[in-house]
Amino acid sequence: MSTPSEQSAVTVLGLGPMGRCLARAFLDAGLRTTVWNRTPGRDRELVERGATGAPSAGEAVAASPLTVVCVVNYDAADAVLRSDAVTDAAKGRTVVNLSADTPDRARSTADWAARHGIRYLDGAIMTPTTTIGTPAAVFLHSGPAELYREHRPVLHALGGTHTHLSEEIGRAAAYDIALLDIFWTAMTGFAHALAVARAEGVTARELAPFAQGISAILPPIFGQYAQALDDGDFSGEDNPLTSAASSMAHIVHTSEAHGIDAGVMRAAGELARRAVADGHGTDGFVRVAELLGRA
Amino acid sequence: MSTPSEQSAVTVLGLGPMGRCLARAFLDAGLRTTVWNRTPGRDRELVERGATGAPSAGEAVAASPLTVVCVVNYDAADAVLRSDAVTDAAKGRTVVNLSADTPDRARSTADWAARHGIRYLDGAIMTPTTTIGTPAAVFLHSGPAELYREHRPVLHALGGTHTHLSEEIGRAAAYDIALLDIFWTAMTGFAHALAVARAEGVTARELAPFAQGISAILPPIFGQYAQALDDGDFSGEDNPLTSAASSMAHIVHTSEAHGIDAGVMRAAGELARRAVADGHGTDGFVRVAELLGRA
Ligand SMILES: NC(=O)c1ccc[n+]([C@@H]2O[C@H](COP(=O)([O-])OP(=O)(O)OC[C@H]3O[C@@H](n4cnc5c(N)ncnc54)[C@H](OP(=O)(O)O)[C@@H]3O)[C@@H](O)[C@H]2O)c1
Ligand SMILES: NC(=O)c1ccc[n+]([C@@H]2O[C@H](COP(=O)([O-])OP(=O)(O)OC[C@H]3O[C@@H](n4cnc5c(N)ncnc54)[C@H](OP(=O)(O)O)[C@@H]3O)[C@@H](O)[C@H]2O)c1
Repeated sequence: MSTPSEQSAVTVLGLGPMGRCLARAFLDAGLRTTVWNRTPGRDRELVERGATGAPSAGEAVAASPLTVVCVVNYDAADAVLRSDAVTDAAKGRTVVNLSADTPDRARSTADWAARHGIRYLDGAIMTPTTTIGTPAAVFLHSGPAELYREHRPVLHALGGTHTHLSEEIGRAAAYDIALLDIFWTAMTGFAHALAVARAEGVTARELAPFAQGISAILPPIFGQYAQALDDGDFSGEDNPLTSAASSMAHIVHTSEAHGIDAGVMRAAGELARRAVADGHGTDGFVRVAELLGRA
Repeated sequence: MSTPSEQSAVTVLGLGPMGRCLARAFLDAGLRTTVWNRTPGRDRELVERGATGAPSAGEAVAASPLTVVCVVNYDAADAVLRSDAVTDAAKGRTVVNLSADTPDRARSTADWAARHGIRYLDGAIMTPTTTIGTPAAVFLHSGPAELYREHRPVLHALGGTHTHLSEEIGRAAAYDIALLDIFWTAMTGFAHALAVARAEGVTARELAPFAQGISAILPPIFGQYAQALDDGDFSGEDNPLTSAASSMAHIVHTSEAHGIDAGVMRAAGELARRAVADGHGTDGFVRVAELLGRA
């Protein structure tokens, strides 16, 4: 359907910090890259590097067999994609949506795409902008495996590892939600810890190496707890929930004694206390995942 | 004051999962080790390995120049230490409290120790039981530097890295609180993510390698944000707060759509939304630390 030169062409819609990095990586890989952003002017540096700045989203989509969308969320993606001009231009072409949102929104976008003869893949980016184009980038994809295989060469120009998780279109968003849940919860804990440390006379730079040490102990614990949850093994032999609940209460106490909002740790501690009250005090923290999931 | 053989003797009070590992490491290092626990019987395996099981906490403390306390918190430590028998036995000896609690409780314990002629160091253990006796263990200490230096050889028998943070006795607990804040918040995010993933048909084992990948991106971000906070540089060029707030709202939505309690992410999202409402939408997430700390 497309000539070789079209094959190596790609369009990027959305030139926020992430969209700009995607476009830059495509350019660096030698792809003919067309870009567009709602607010004009964001394409300047990319055009200097050889990108084509399209005057409208419809014209941008018409320029390439593959369009990558990377905007803040699916309300934004819908605002861009579901105009007549873009819907018409996308017909018979492929759209890969790398914007973050919920599995339901990915499914609804796939329905819209199917109704309009648009080939659709959903995806998620799990690493910061600085990783794009490097081996450290992590991309997740879902949707028709065949379609993914067809566009894999272009997607691989973004660097890093790409995993096609499932034909189920919502799967990449499901992973994205779960992984961002870990990320933003951890980041909130870190921001809170910096505030508490500062109130205790400890600078962020002083705390940082130890905070990095704490994040380094997470991967093996994540591995063990994941196995434990799947196997229904909640033993807290090494670190009982009562001990966690005690530490969580100290964090709330110290934080609030400094007048620092401890709402997040209060809510977290409440989950641990509820598990203890339900008779699971000698279990490990993974019991909290099981109790949350009983809903 | 003490003979060479006394110098290489140590007492451990508290034989929970962590206390038992500490005692085991002391034994493995060839130290004459005396142990005691409130509930009897916990010392069996240690006695088989050569430890002396003391019949009372007072006798345990009297057996060594250095006593390490490792119980659930300072209510428990007080219950053990502040009896007449233990207070008398500890006079002129050193107590190192490795139980987790707040800086205030460390300070109050130091006051008690000073009133009774007991030499006191406070500390915290930042790694799981499995690391004790290995290079991966991390210990923090605070209190008189001279006293720390005197007992460093025995403490080093626990393996890992030992950092004397400050003469200020509360400092190790302050670090402990901040680091456990990161740890338990992240663990809660992980437990929640496992529940949400499972509701979306993703097993814990499937999610685990990606969850480990997410925790691997934290250390460099922690380093950058710590510098940014100390320098008062809140630029969100690479990842604005509006984008974080959007993702956090998706997590709450997806979680609650599955009937899963999202209280922790609701509280976290509220901090981000408040920062956006205050006009900081284009700042980075580190702004949340600054706003929390304004209290
Ligand atoms: N930055 C990261 O480190 C990172 C990492 C992994 C994943 N992601 C994901 O990548 C996506 C893009 O993120 P980002 O960092 O580039 O910044 P962002 O702030 O999430 O998104 C900015 C982009 O969204 C566009 N946009 C917002 N509302 C719109 C609307 N109603 N109509 C059309 N366009 C709209 C903006 O256009 P205007 O310029 O016109 O406002 C801009 O192009 C997000 O889903 C994010 O979660 C980002
Ligand atoms: N486990 C870990 O991975 C880990 C990692 C870093 C730091 N820590 C810290 O190490 C400390 C000990 O933790 P742990 O894992 O061994 O288990 P834990 O459940 O926190 O503490 C159990 C110990 O506390 C004692 N205890 C509780 N209440 C007591 C009281 N009122 N009077 C006297 N003793 C009392 C228990 O005695 P009984 O047997 O009589 O109940 C047992 O010896 C805690 O502060 C914890 O935060 C643990």
